[in-house]
Amino acid sequence: MADYSVYELLNKKRRGGPLEPREIEFLIDGFTRATIPEYQMSALLMAIAINGMTAEEMATLTQAMLRSGEQWHLRSEYDFIADKHSTGGVGDKVSLVLSPWVAACGVQIGMLSGRGLGHTGGTLDKLEAIPGFNARLSRADFERCVADAGCVISTSTEGIAPADKKIYALRDVTGTVESLPLITASIMSKKLAMGASGLILDVKTGSGAFMRIYQDSKALAQSLIAAAAGSGTKVEALITDMDRPLGIAAGNANEIVETIDCLKGVGPVDVMEVTRAQAERVLVMSRRFDEASANRALQEALTTGAALQQARKWIAAQGGNPEIVDDYSLLPQPREVIEVKAPQSGFITAMDTYQAGMFTVDLGAGRKKADDVIDYAAGVLFDRRTGDEVRAGDVIARIQLGSARRDAEELRARYLSFVKIGDEAPAERPLVHEHLT
Amino acid sequence: MADYSVYELLNKKRRGGPLEPREIEFLIDGFTRATIPEYQMSALLMAIAINGMTAEEMATLTQAMLRSGEQWHLRSEYDFIADKHSTGGVGDKVSLVLSPWVAACGVQIGMLSGRGLGHTGGTLDKLEAIPGFNARLSRADFERCVADAGCVISTSTEGIAPADKKIYALRDVTGTVESLPLITASIMSKKLAMGASGLILDVKTGSGAFMRIYQDSKALAQSLIAAAAGSGTKVEALITDMDRPLGIAAGNANEIVETIDCLKGVGPVDVMEVTRAQAERVLVMSRRFDEASANRALQEALTTGAALQQARKWIAAQGGNPEIVDDYSLLPQPREVIEVKAPQSGFITAMDTYQAGMFTVDLGAGRKKADDVIDYAAGVLFDRRTGDEVRAGDVIARIQLGSARRDAEELRARYLSFVKIGDEAPAERPLVHEHLT
Repeated sequence: MADYSVYELLNKKRRGGPLEPREIEFLIDGFTRATIPEYQMSALLMAIAINGMTAEEMATLTQAMLRSGEQWHLRSEYDFIADKHSTGGVGDKVSLVLSPWVAACGVQIGMLSGRGLGHTGGTLDKLEAIPGFNARLSRADFERCVADAGCVISTSTEGIAPADKKIYALRDVTGTVESLPLITASIMSKKLAMGASGLILDVKTGSGAFMRIYQDSKALAQSLIAAAAGSGTKVEALITDMDRPLGIAAGNANEIVETIDCLKGVGPVDVMEVTRAQAERVLVMSRRFDEASANRALQEALTTGAALQQARKWIAAQGGNPEIVDDYSLLPQPREVIEVKAPQSGFITAMDTYQAGMFTVDLGAGRKKADDVIDYAAGVLFDRRTGDEVRAGDVIARIQLGSARRDAEELRARYLSFVKIGDEAPAERPLVHEHLT
Repeated sequence: MADYSVYELLNKKRRGGPLEPREIEFLIDGFTRATIPEYQMSALLMAIAINGMTAEEMATLTQAMLRSGEQWHLRSEYDFIADKHSTGGVGDKVSLVLSPWVAACGVQIGMLSGRGLGHTGGTLDKLEAIPGFNARLSRADFERCVADAGCVISTSTEGIAPADKKIYALRDVTGTVESLPLITASIMSKKLAMGASGLILDVKTGSGAFMRIYQDSKALAQSLIAAAAGSGTKVEALITDMDRPLGIAAGNANEIVETIDCLKGVGPVDVMEVTRAQAERVLVMSRRFDEASANRALQEALTTGAALQQARKWIAAQGGNPEIVDDYSLLPQPREVIEVKAPQSGFITAMDTYQAGMFTVDLGAGRKKADDVIDYAAGVLFDRRTGDEVRAGDVIARIQLGSARRDAEELRARYLSFVKIGDEAPAERPLVHEHLT
């Protein structure tokens, strides 16, 4: 690899000039091998965060980061294998419902997923609420699960995109987390290192989303798609709503319950609609279905119980107890449930979903710091949500306490602080906003 | 000191928001005491280099950096003590001529000065060409020299602005050298830490200046003046020309010779004009002179030999051999002198002064790296300069070789590569462009 002057490359990016592909590769390779020190990389990250990157720079950065580690090239081993990524939200159990559902339709799917940090929950944390569930799989075990159960969700192995781990740790302490090109490269380097045939992106928008403003969410979706150009993985995105929690449950064990309810056909309509939209795209991307046949297959997988049966196989394949599907009492149970009642009659006009997420985290269901321990039984059931009519005294939420003792009145007051009740029903907001390819 | 989140302050500066005075103080204090790591400071420096700073932020940064170390507050000990700073150029011996000259007029002056790096020479390097001259003075010795000789030039002590030393080392490797607020704070933190009564700034402009473009030079001068607001040191600036070398000599020993020539009244007119303009401002800033009386005093100091006598006292006070004033052969002598002749008749229309400076450095008169060793005898005499008429075969320059052997033809060819000869005299350029207060 050519030997560039890091100093000159930093000068160039400071002045706003785009970096050449080989220059970006030199920088990422050097930082991964620690020949470029953190103080130079953090200056580069700040320059990128302020001055941005062209689409070409972003694609090169993504490729350089994914090439810093293992590349699984799964698409070369399967006729079609899907992947799915969500930018994260409150109550977002779409990956959990979608995986066995599309597997039941004959489309294999595998995800290298993340843990929760900040206001959003983590898919792996939710799965680990299932007794025995093993989310730390080797590549061999990952592929064995795909073969046995048609689906798998595991934590990213050490070998995947080590540059991303090093860069993310630095962004976290240098004020460079909010950066479209850096967010894009971080997400896509891990996804493209796995190398699925098709990837569906669920980009959230609204008060509980990473990108609250619609145009920012759309820019992120477009950026994620652009970064995959030439990678061999087909990528589509749906922009979906996160201006209110998704479904009734936010937490870990309670979201597993809701997931199984969905697979039984008795889940909340919003979770079903958002998941169905994405599952349909996955089936169509596999080219074995068109939209009509995809919808029929998905409906049939629910009504025949095939999706539920696939969930049992999946949980068992990853070492979990599949009996939780039929007996929710085998999951961690809350020690106490606190009801929150509507203080007045009217309509729920808004829920600050970021605050709802932080409330859930504070109950023990999530992490503020990377080494916080999860309380799987803790969580919230949002019995009434934005748009619902309520009468004074109606139970609008149930707060599920895990092991920690908490003051009930304080929790109720805090819950009501992020829920607005007004006289008129709010305007309806679609659940699926836009489909981008 | 309040405990801020460095991460949040970096986010704020990344987004372009101005930092509060206490936030800047927290960051500089933390970095100086190494509680804030280099990778956070380099991200901050990049954000400042791209997003700039308000005048208030810049003044606070300067104050925070100077407070990281000793503050001499010299103005509290003297009726009036002057300081002088140049942004650097080729052949710039103004500090050397000015110091004994204003001292001879009864105005005391002291400078903490720097060594040469890159294309510009360093005042201390030139002084160290004098046998025995000691430029590493303690504060006590510094003040003894002021008392004995009315003037002193010394290297900055370890205790002055340690934050600047740490920050500069980081800027040097992170592409953040070119930044008006960071340049300003670096210069002014050291100057204000000494705390003179009055400070004259010589901001150079043109092809041999740090800021080549006039508007950039003017912005730097204004920024330097603004950063001193509220410090107690009165600051004025002159923007002077560096589109051609100043004087005939560039090097070290040869600039000492030219300095003494100036004090004898036989120096080049351009050095005299630029030095006189600054000396006059120093005398007027002391309030003991108006412009007319300042000029009379300066002229008298030359004609009576008082300035030259002051130079002898000054050199002796700093341990140097004062006999060099009367016998230049006591200074390091070139081993060989190579003449450069005009290849054609006409006018010298331009000299790339940056290239002239780098040429001088390459002869051994300066440093490309901080640990390069100076060859005091090496240098160049620019016998003909921009605007001069020449005939083919006229000697236009003499290259003085020190200890290193060099190829004469190669040196002549390189010299001629940065000197343009044309048919018409170039437009005249003033030596002193503007006076800013």
